Amino acid sequence: MKRDTRQAILLAGAELIHRQGFNRTGIKEILDLAGVPKGSFYFYFPSKEAFGLALIDHFTEHMGGTARSILFDPGLPPLERLARFFATLREKFSDLHCARGCPIGNLSQEMSDLSPAIQQRVCAAFSGMAGLLARVLGEAAERGELSGGIDPDQAAAFIVDAWEGALLRMKAEKRIDPLLRFEDIIFTRVLR
Amino acid sequence: MKRDTRQAILLAGAELIHRQGFNRTGIKEILDLAGVPKGSFYFYFPSKEAFGLALIDHFTEHMGGTARSILFDPGLPPLERLARFFATLREKFSDLHCARGCPIGNLSQEMSDLSPAIQQRVCAAFSGMAGLLARVLGEAAERGELSGGIDPDQAAAFIVDAWEGALLRMKAEKRIDPLLRFEDIIFTRVLR
Repeated sequence: MKRDTRQAILLAGAELIHRQGFNRTGIKEILDLAGVPKGSFYFYFPSKEAFGLALIDHFTEHMGGTARSILFDPGLPPLERLARFFATLREKFSDLHCARGCPIGNLSQEMSDLSPAIQQRVCAAFSGMAGLLARVLGEAAERGELSGGIDPDQAAAFIVDAWEGALLRMKAEKRIDPLLRFEDIIFTRVLR
Repeated sequence: MKRDTRQAILLAGAELIHRQGFNRTGIKEILDLAGVPKGSFYFYFPSKEAFGLALIDHFTEHMGGTARSILFDPGLPPLERLARFFATLREKFSDLHCARGCPIGNLSQEMSDLSPAIQQRVCAAFSGMAGLLARVLGEAAERGELSGGIDPDQAAAFIVDAWEGALLRMKAEKRIDPLLRFEDIIFTRVLR
């Protein structure tokens, strides 16, 4: 029951904060959407900052699950898995009408200068994602499928950054084109 | 005098909003920093949204000036001008201890889903910047200095997006490395 209340607050906060931002979302609004009593928040989260950290963990877990299931699918060659990963994310954002963007990127943009704890947690999230991509690129390199001279770790870090930028532009333009452009240039020029 | 008050509010708002975000910054806080009377704001700006639009114009003008002076320097070949442009911005962010990030990118991230007017204005700002880069890349293509098969407009749009992503990661990591990585991959793999 306690676990359920915490989870309900987390899911409501994830929805609202992904939709409208961390600083714009009030605790009361989260509790109203979660349908839990007003006093509950501080029982589970010592502060809004602590809630932000729990949210990053929540998004990272969710995203990491999706990423692993596609990126380490044993039936496909590594670069095809990578392409499928970004195509899957693109379809998801298309369903969302190009709104919201990356929840980790948003928190990072809003909070990196204001909360060292959140700053460190988003960094870890970005590095974790880059680490998964680097493993896939490392496999591609071993199979001789990666363009010569590119370091899998550097390429993976660049891909994470460029993806965040593409999502930012998608959200601004309300069009999927920046994601298609990202996929085109990463796969035809950066990796091959 | 009226002009000076408007400008003082704009400069104070630019400083605070670049430092801590649009939604987190209150009008009172801006007026306090500007040192102008409380009633002044709504005399110059009908709403906070209208102020956001004026801010985008302010940042775009400022940035456009810097960009033009470097990107169209007649003494250097096009790709060297482009490299100098990003190196100059990198040094500026280094001086800021990797804080703040791109003011247009920040507003875009925070407000694109919440204000159609701001969304359209940041789009125009991104397109304007991409247009400047595309002119430089077009010159490089004419001189045969651009890698074959890459379209200057597509490349310029990708560079703007990837730059925004690199700034986001720089702000998260509080290190300049994502900008160096951006420069390396854009100039050694995407353009050549």
